[in-house]
Amino acid sequence: MLTARYLGDRAVDTAEAQPEPPPAGQVQVRVAYNGLCGTDLHILHGAMDGRVTRPLIFGHEASGEVAAVGDGVTGWAVGDPVVVMPLDWDGTCPACLAGHQHICQNLTFIGIDSPGALQEVWNVPARTLVRLPAGLRLDHAALVEPVAVAVHDVRRSELAPGDKAVVIGGGPIGVLIATVARDAGADVVVIELDAARRAQIADLGFATLDPTAADQVAWVEEWTGGAGADVVFEVSGAAPAVLGATGLAKVRGTIVVVAIHPTPRPIDLQRMFWRELRLLGARVYEATDFEAAVDLLARGVIPADLLITKIVPLSGTGAAFADLEAGRAMKILVDVRDHS
Amino acid sequence: MLTARYLGDRAVDTAEAQPEPPPAGQVQVRVAYNGLCGTDLHILHGAMDGRVTRPLIFGHEASGEVAAVGDGVTGWAVGDPVVVMPLDWDGTCPACLAGHQHICQNLTFIGIDSPGALQEVWNVPARTLVRLPAGLRLDHAALVEPVAVAVHDVRRSELAPGDKAVVIGGGPIGVLIATVARDAGADVVVIELDAARRAQIADLGFATLDPTAADQVAWVEEWTGGAGADVVFEVSGAAPAVLGATGLAKVRGTIVVVAIHPTPRPIDLQRMFWRELRLLGARVYEATDFEAAVDLLARGVIPADLLITKIVPLSGTGAAFADLEAGRAMKILVDVRDHS
Ligand SMILES: [Zn+2]
Ligand SMILES: [Zn+2]
Repeated sequence: MLTARYLGDRAVDTAEAQPEPPPAGQVQVRVAYNGLCGTDLHILHGAMDGRVTRPLIFGHEASGEVAAVGDGVTGWAVGDPVVVMPLDWDGTCPACLAGHQHICQNLTFIGIDSPGALQEVWNVPARTLVRLPAGLRLDHAALVEPVAVAVHDVRRSELAPGDKAVVIGGGPIGVLIATVARDAGADVVVIELDAARRAQIADLGFATLDPTAADQVAWVEEWTGGAGADVVFEVSGAAPAVLGATGLAKVRGTIVVVAIHPTPRPIDLQRMFWRELRLLGARVYEATDFEAAVDLLARGVIPADLLITKIVPLSGTGAAFADLEAGRAMKILVDVRDHS
Repeated sequence: MLTARYLGDRAVDTAEAQPEPPPAGQVQVRVAYNGLCGTDLHILHGAMDGRVTRPLIFGHEASGEVAAVGDGVTGWAVGDPVVVMPLDWDGTCPACLAGHQHICQNLTFIGIDSPGALQEVWNVPARTLVRLPAGLRLDHAALVEPVAVAVHDVRRSELAPGDKAVVIGGGPIGVLIATVARDAGADVVVIELDAARRAQIADLGFATLDPTAADQVAWVEEWTGGAGADVVFEVSGAAPAVLGATGLAKVRGTIVVVAIHPTPRPIDLQRMFWRELRLLGARVYEATDFEAAVDLLARGVIPADLLITKIVPLSGTGAAFADLEAGRAMKILVDVRDHS
């Protein structure tokens, strides 16, 4: 079978590999589509070389069908349409025992710490599977993983209907957070530097703000009747955005840090204190978030066709990363069945 | 009557002033004791010159008795022992309308934004008064305000019985937070650089840690069975302490920023993300915190005699600040009735 691999030194190749039958407790998924994301780019750039074993078959945003079922697995049959929640936890650490398996202190992230979805068939623990309803297209279903990130972030924020939410950063995750927050009843504005992205986001019906053209604090203050935003999602990863985020939140408001900030960032603790703000870290998702994401896609809430810039064959993985690096795409899917 | 005033340029004096009868809706308090605190030092150092009108009669940690009652005030009689919650809110801003009057967007902090307690009689809005039980000494009652800060911080942390709590910084507020947290059922360790303070804190029965002698992360990890602390209180105000605080908290743990950090501080957002931490700002107190603080003092939970390093006459206010600056005292009370 064909696989796409990260080799180190920014190199990607495709290579043949021998499929293995699923071990006990595992299910073999015939992968249909796999979305490429910022984490894959981090891997490609070598930022995670201390963590990943090379060559690494990457990919963790996959849809597909059950191809084979290992010993001891019940409830799954060949042909079932599925997505994979790519987390594997030990079940024994303090975080797991406290019920936070998704952020297990010894978490294995499948596709980073173990082989991922860019291979024709992929063996994963049965408990990682989430069932898809009939009628949900498999290309759209490849968005379940990033949508689940957005669902988790919004759930973590405790956003309530009628809340005003600011999303800083209008990339794929920012747009998904805005969409999930709006579906949950919030009024949303997206702050985004790039004019083309702002136009796309405005087409989805969101208010947008160019922070270089408007005073974002004054804008949010007026928008919220002098109160400030209930929730601010920091999705940009930029240091000035984090520093400014506290200025947008209301008294007792919440800031969710969604983006990865590899180095410590200055935070306005004076403002945190003055308004009794709450800053929350949010990481990946739980099973309930995956299920909610499937439902959002099945209901057509997620603008899947707008988000999926293009679909490429497995051999196009390297070129797709170049498009993502250049900001030429929101989301690119790899059709793992396409060997053209 | 005699008053103690901040004049600007680090100068304090005592001066005569004409007492005024309490206006409608206000009560005149005959001040007994007033504690001096870090905020008063900030004022003295000129750090709040942009905010305070000089000369300023400062002081906001006072106990006393009702001396006179203004028109329209009910429920108070001359001689009632009281403390004053030194907050005055507008009742009309978004924060007030949301029920957060204590952090009103237009809050007047009495003793900073309006005249404080370092005067023989002090007129305050009737709603700021909190009644003292018979038998609570007025010198101990002067600690109600800082104890209420600690109660508020602990309440904000949502600390639960059996939790492990780390207090970074063993000054008066740190000791009070440790005491309140222990009374709420937590195991507490206090991290403090100063050996003399560590010895005092150990005498109160707390575990202590010298961060220059021990690896605090390893210590807390072992103390918590590999989990990390449930709650970390950052009371030191030091940039390295804030940066290190995230390393001490468990998955989904809470960090309460109690200290004032006048400039933005680097925060380890990677760790915030990785463990889904929660960072909370906490400011002043609410009426319920004042009532709980009175109860803690009345029950003898607060080591008042250990915390009160000395009591000085009103004319000793300036010298008392010098002692505080030099770290020679935990808490100094001014006996406002003593004109020696
Ligand atoms: Zn675990
Ligand atoms: Zn107000």
